[in-house]
Amino acid sequence: MSDDKIENPVSFSKLQELEDDFEDVEVELLRQQAKLTADLYTKRAQVIADIPNFWPLVLEQSPADLDEYIQPTDSAVLLNSLTDLSVERFELASGGDPRSIAIKLTFGPNEYFSDTTLEKKFWWRYAKDGWAGLVSEPVKINWKSKDKDLTQGLLDLVCQVRAAERQLPAGKKLDDDAEPKKSLLAQMEATGLGGVSFFAWFGFCGRNVSAEESKEAFKEEQAKRQKRKAGEEVDEDDDEDDDDDFDEYDTEIFPTADDVAVCIAEDVWPNAIKYFITAMEHDALSDMDFEESDEEMEEADGEEHTSKKRKA
Amino acid sequence: MSDDKIENPVSFSKLQELEDDFEDVEVELLRQQAKLTADLYTKRAQVIADIPNFWPLVLEQSPADLDEYIQPTDSAVLLNSLTDLSVERFELASGGDPRSIAIKLTFGPNEYFSDTTLEKKFWWRYAKDGWAGLVSEPVKINWKSKDKDLTQGLLDLVCQVRAAERQLPAGKKLDDDAEPKKSLLAQMEATGLGGVSFFAWFGFCGRNVSAEESKEAFKEEQAKRQKRKAGEEVDEDDDEDDDDDFDEYDTEIFPTADDVAVCIAEDVWPNAIKYFITAMEHDALSDMDFEESDEEMEEADGEEHTSKKRKA
Repeated sequence: MSDDKIENPVSFSKLQELEDDFEDVEVELLRQQAKLTADLYTKRAQVIADIPNFWPLVLEQSPADLDEYIQPTDSAVLLNSLTDLSVERFELASGGDPRSIAIKLTFGPNEYFSDTTLEKKFWWRYAKDGWAGLVSEPVKINWKSKDKDLTQGLLDLVCQVRAAERQLPAGKKLDDDAEPKKSLLAQMEATGLGGVSFFAWFGFCGRNVSAEESKEAFKEEQAKRQKRKAGEEVDEDDDEDDDDDFDEYDTEIFPTADDVAVCIAEDVWPNAIKYFITAMEHDALSDMDFEESDEEMEEADGEEHTSKKRKA
Repeated sequence: MSDDKIENPVSFSKLQELEDDFEDVEVELLRQQAKLTADLYTKRAQVIADIPNFWPLVLEQSPADLDEYIQPTDSAVLLNSLTDLSVERFELASGGDPRSIAIKLTFGPNEYFSDTTLEKKFWWRYAKDGWAGLVSEPVKINWKSKDKDLTQGLLDLVCQVRAAERQLPAGKKLDDDAEPKKSLLAQMEATGLGGVSFFAWFGFCGRNVSAEESKEAFKEEQAKRQKRKAGEEVDEDDDEDDDDDFDEYDTEIFPTADDVAVCIAEDVWPNAIKYFITAMEHDALSDMDFEESDEEMEEADGEEHTSKKRKA
């Protein structure tokens, strides 16, 4: 978007300045939240340890933004073997960005893979073209056999492509007809991504922004902010890199994985007890005597919807 | 739900205790957020004042939780006449609950109603049965004529029912066949609530919990919390009031209005600049040369989805 879309370009620059200030507050609140909740999360982990199936039941009630990606088979795997889930804002301790998130799933024995923990990290990074967001690295899953691979080979191929591209000079990418990228693109084409397993989430990469590039981009961004605040004109580098941006997503087997990570960190994780209690209530409802009328069932649903807090 | 649904009743009491502690932190963070953002919202209001159609454009991009309630006619009214929107956590200044919300819409001249401002308040209240949530009072809209009434009489009837019930002894309600309740129920039956106007949102009441009852219920709740913390047994008064609860919703013409209010306060209001910028980008896209391929359009959409921040 260029400034001429706004009647008043001064307003646009002011809006951008305000957005930056709001973002600072948001980050500061994440820090405060982490400080105020740390002990509670430790206590919660202790209480949860005594409750069988806590996390599978929470995920069963999870918001649509996450639930829509959990296929029936995923659901069975999670229900039978997910024993723990944790979210850490892992850069916080070293004074880094609280928006960087590590999500760790712990599993008991299951027929699909041999891993006992799968951890996916998302780093908050800044790019030179003004973009900022979460980037990640693919996480390999050790499937017990080829036909137990819930992603039908997609995750392995993404890991291979990433490993191959790490050998190339910075910023270079594999050609579409170079292996293993060729196989990945063919497999993506063949399966489509509509009903892809939730476990493909571990394959997300996002934009290829290194820690160094991010640091420099952040500095440039801060310099621009200072200029805006001082009322100086800022050289807004426009969309010249759009084509590159697009290329970076062509091997993404779970393009919205960053949004899902944020949903887990900002909704599922803090509200886990609420979701768990809802799951218990649903169980209670489905145990209800069939003589109860439909109207009464609706009542129970309606009430739940408008209550912010369960009955004590 | 009764405790016997959980294998370990001790865990349940501990979970409830934790939920209460998490709630305290949430409320404290709302206070801090209000403190840290107050100046920014003042500045934003000044900048926005220079931008025509700021709020209508924001609402056009609003999240599905709100957007699904805005009918095409509502949308036209808002686009042509909404000049300002503001959210205030109005009990905060007096040390009250930061979850109480006032939402004020300001309008220019339009063919539907003569009001220049419509303000809807939601109070955070506690009920004696353990429920807590937002309650409200219906807000009358002065429609220019009967056929300009976007709610087809529903809002007027809700206002009349509420006024009539205020004359009754506390806790008493109108019989279903007493006017004006009879007409309201008939009109709700006749119109159905599927495609009801967004303006019916002003009719929401929620549970009939007075400020006094809320104060007492809060005290009782706090006493229970102390007991739980001390490891004492707590008398959990169970669902004996369920039938009453249900009755309280039978004249609700916009049953999810409290959720919509929270969506406006926690999403639309803080993220208004982001939504506005997205709206401007959509305008820019729809102005694009038709020679650009579909692929390029998808690119623009996809990129927007995964960027947390617009390009500077």
